[in-house]
Amino acid sequence: MKRIRGRNMKRRSFLQRATGAVAAATAAASFPKPAISQGLMEWTMVTTWPMNFPGLGTGANLLADFITRGSGGRLTVKVRGAGEIVPAFEAMDAVSGGTVEMGHGAPYYWKGKVPATQFIPSGPFGMTAQELNAWIQYGGGQELADKVYGELGCKFFASGNSGVQMGGWFNKEMNSLDDYQGLKMRIPGLGGEVVKAAGGNVVNLPGAEIQPALQSGAIDATEWVGPYNDLAFGLYKSAKFYYYPGWQEPATCLDNFINIKKWEALPGDLKALIEAANAAVNHLVLGEFIARNNTALLVLLTQHNVQLRRFSNEILYGLGELAGQVLNDLASRDRLSREVFDSALNFRKDAIAWSKTSEQAYLAARGLPFKYAEPSTG
Amino acid sequence: MKRIRGRNMKRRSFLQRATGAVAAATAAASFPKPAISQGLMEWTMVTTWPMNFPGLGTGANLLADFITRGSGGRLTVKVRGAGEIVPAFEAMDAVSGGTVEMGHGAPYYWKGKVPATQFIPSGPFGMTAQELNAWIQYGGGQELADKVYGELGCKFFASGNSGVQMGGWFNKEMNSLDDYQGLKMRIPGLGGEVVKAAGGNVVNLPGAEIQPALQSGAIDATEWVGPYNDLAFGLYKSAKFYYYPGWQEPATCLDNFINIKKWEALPGDLKALIEAANAAVNHLVLGEFIARNNTALLVLLTQHNVQLRRFSNEILYGLGELAGQVLNDLASRDRLSREVFDSALNFRKDAIAWSKTSEQAYLAARGLPFKYAEPSTG
Repeated sequence: MKRIRGRNMKRRSFLQRATGAVAAATAAASFPKPAISQGLMEWTMVTTWPMNFPGLGTGANLLADFITRGSGGRLTVKVRGAGEIVPAFEAMDAVSGGTVEMGHGAPYYWKGKVPATQFIPSGPFGMTAQELNAWIQYGGGQELADKVYGELGCKFFASGNSGVQMGGWFNKEMNSLDDYQGLKMRIPGLGGEVVKAAGGNVVNLPGAEIQPALQSGAIDATEWVGPYNDLAFGLYKSAKFYYYPGWQEPATCLDNFINIKKWEALPGDLKALIEAANAAVNHLVLGEFIARNNTALLVLLTQHNVQLRRFSNEILYGLGELAGQVLNDLASRDRLSREVFDSALNFRKDAIAWSKTSEQAYLAARGLPFKYAEPSTG
Repeated sequence: MKRIRGRNMKRRSFLQRATGAVAAATAAASFPKPAISQGLMEWTMVTTWPMNFPGLGTGANLLADFITRGSGGRLTVKVRGAGEIVPAFEAMDAVSGGTVEMGHGAPYYWKGKVPATQFIPSGPFGMTAQELNAWIQYGGGQELADKVYGELGCKFFASGNSGVQMGGWFNKEMNSLDDYQGLKMRIPGLGGEVVKAAGGNVVNLPGAEIQPALQSGAIDATEWVGPYNDLAFGLYKSAKFYYYPGWQEPATCLDNFINIKKWEALPGDLKALIEAANAAVNHLVLGEFIARNNTALLVLLTQHNVQLRRFSNEILYGLGELAGQVLNDLASRDRLSREVFDSALNFRKDAIAWSKTSEQAYLAARGLPFKYAEPSTG
């Protein structure tokens, strides 16, 4: 995933021409908010996604909808897509600075401001979605994330999860770890650091520039999200091989960040509602990806002649070794990153042991070639 | 899981001495509800769990808490454990009949009333928690469950998930499918039907009678939930071998059932709040099990000398074959069961295909023996 450039520019209005925090603040202050005089509130949620972007933008919509409906309109949340009020990656500044009240994006988008944010979602060879959620809720992750987002002047909520992503789109077959030598690949974040350590030539491109770059041969490969998003994005038009599994992003969580002063000033019932709404969305977004990915994958394979490939164990083993070193080095650069990473590492170890007895063992059992029931034709 | 008898009898009050629906209704009507006069509501949630039972009863508490806090007290939900107002398995009658407004339990508890309920949670070799949730939310499961619960006069919400359970506690080693011949095992529900088809002598016992029966040799084996619950239950005192994976209950969902007239009379904001609160709890309960199971498993293995055993592929293959036949036969006995099972089967097929490319493939990759990062000691 990462770095979707706002493309829905038709929604451009006078607001978007405002540049810089001061102008944006002025613009936001000029929003009509007639309801406030009746004791009702209207909040704006800026997102890093184009409006209604499948799974991600629709997750932000769901969150706004739960809060607005659940509060009976006492707190109406309006969603604004990337570029409508501020560009995607200025969403955090707009919330930190109080221009708008809340935002929706992904933790690693803010690593340039606070490096520890990139250790909150699950990184290369990290936890699965349900393990990550368990860590956040019952393993100390929420408290650490609040500490990290506190540096940004925000309250943190996990607010959606894309589940296990795909490994990416490649225009050459990957047969061994050596094939990463000189590979020009668009893969941002921690996954990109691992590919770099494997000898890759890692570049970062915003969403809109990926397909042309693949088409022209400027890059050999790219990762994005998974079939549901990748089909919509048209990446199959410019790459032949679709690799799995997504070792680099096994469970990227989305974030809902709320200006800390606005959060603290809320009455308890709205705080509880926002907490429940985020937990609900965290779970619903994952459900949407799981429900839609397989159908999309089938379309890619049968209608667009995409060739599905599994990374070999040799490649995965090699990337796993590199990931351990790279993440360890990065986490050691500042105290807060180390604190988050250590907590996640401890939980990961326990979660893996339990998964081997539960999820992983069960999936292996279910995968045995017995004949199961079939839907009735009647 | 299944059939926890309410054991917290210290909470017995005059209410519990009331027997039968009429008496219970009278008792409930005599609850002090002073708040109603101020436009505030108080609802009672009867549960099939003892108060505060780990993971399950605490899930019901979480739900009540989100609704009560999120509504600012406009709708206060009071939780009552099994046996406090009605015995565990009369919870549905109490809600259907309007004695109380809502309940918390598990769908298959109501199979004696509407057989299709048992096809709503994930049965033998069925979907994982995140797949089941995706089916409920995005695959038509919610609509079907509402149809099924409509027969009971209730609105349905998925409200917690125990994740992959354990295979159970055994006093003899299971080396082949033949070892099920004559095995006296407490295993209720669809899993019990499969064990019966394998030649087992299946019995059903309420929670409190399981350990004595294991101890005396009246039964050879039992299933329950997983380490977190099983440790609290003390089953390790009477059985040597702890088998995995829990092929019989890979993702049992809990249910929140609401009297349909009470539900329909709610204003939209409280409906949205209850919907969000259930989705939140659905996800939080699973997180609690994942966070607690491994620690509990370690205690069982290291402090109580429990021997962990994996069912062989031969056994799992054989049980898988039998499960297909048994479930197919049971589902074909009535139209509604068939409708639910067919929908779940179709979704399961897609979910398995996606899991092989995502979750299952990822877990295998993560399980390779590379050296990963370790928590810092500093």
